[in-house]
Amino acid sequence: MELLKQRIRQDGIVKTADILKVDSFLNHQCDITLIEAIATEFKRRFANRPINKIMTIEASGISIACLTAQQFGVPLVFAKKAQSINLEGDVFTARVESFTHRRVFDVILSKKYIGPEDHVLIVDDFLAYGCALYGLIEIAEMAQATIEGIGIVIEKGFQQGGRSLRERGYQIESLAVIESMDPATNTVFFQ
Amino acid sequence: MELLKQRIRQDGIVKTADILKVDSFLNHQCDITLIEAIATEFKRRFANRPINKIMTIEASGISIACLTAQQFGVPLVFAKKAQSINLEGDVFTARVESFTHRRVFDVILSKKYIGPEDHVLIVDDFLAYGCALYGLIEIAEMAQATIEGIGIVIEKGFQQGGRSLRERGYQIESLAVIESMDPATNTVFFQ
Repeated sequence: MELLKQRIRQDGIVKTADILKVDSFLNHQCDITLIEAIATEFKRRFANRPINKIMTIEASGISIACLTAQQFGVPLVFAKKAQSINLEGDVFTARVESFTHRRVFDVILSKKYIGPEDHVLIVDDFLAYGCALYGLIEIAEMAQATIEGIGIVIEKGFQQGGRSLRERGYQIESLAVIESMDPATNTVFFQ
Repeated sequence: MELLKQRIRQDGIVKTADILKVDSFLNHQCDITLIEAIATEFKRRFANRPINKIMTIEASGISIACLTAQQFGVPLVFAKKAQSINLEGDVFTARVESFTHRRVFDVILSKKYIGPEDHVLIVDDFLAYGCALYGLIEIAEMAQATIEGIGIVIEKGFQQGGRSLRERGYQIESLAVIESMDPATNTVFFQ
């Protein structure tokens, strides 16, 4: 998706060869016009799928999921990252390790909001090692929901998450796949 | 907002006289059509304000802020609840106590995404004691931004947050204000 790649080149900050910051437009401040274009592109790429729910994980996936849900005319559900006293006890839980935050946490989703009748599109801002995605997939499988596809805004192609998920047979659509990054010149190379 | 009150009556679960669960449509599973109507109502109530940014806090405020930002044609920025290794060091921080989660946490927002040029509308799903809102207000004030108003989906009118914030002179628009709740009959009484 050329508009997205242009924006990453223009406003992304390459902190290290592994870490790209896009918090000026995607996951801290959010440019709604850009995210609408992202959502429209997801709709185009998964148009033939009988999707009835968008699934993501808090927090940075929510704005993307929200506008994608609007495009598909379906609800969204977002998994939570820690047990809250305000969630019902009857939840699906998957243990996940975060690369970004260097910690282990539980991904939690109420059993009321995902089940065998659901055909979900999972969306998220980044795919690196795929840890958060594996948590969402595990929950969807526990719920016997059908995973119709996975929509990713930015995939770090040099990390193994995308490859191992594709080997499992999922349709993964990443709108910008990074080949490598150079922090010295703040350059992002796309596949 | 009658549509919202009807939905709360229909799908809200009164856990105790203090705790209302609306996670089937607002803050775990999200009904985009309802949230679009909420966003449209915020636009109507703050139409005369020169708002150039929507501000909220992760995670449950984001879907509301996202569709509100779409209505206003402006970006949103969401404060984070814990220090991330992926946030720049140059941040505003306010300490907040959560009623729902019974813990103290830091509200964090990058100095790059709020400043004296900003006229913000703060939105959130709930107003009870107002702790999270005070954190957002403190950050907006540190940044010398103008707070044009505060849009709340559900206010617990029997708790003091709304009163003390209105006494400070803010225009607070709560789309459903709860007078009291009866867990025995699962009834919500609105003001």
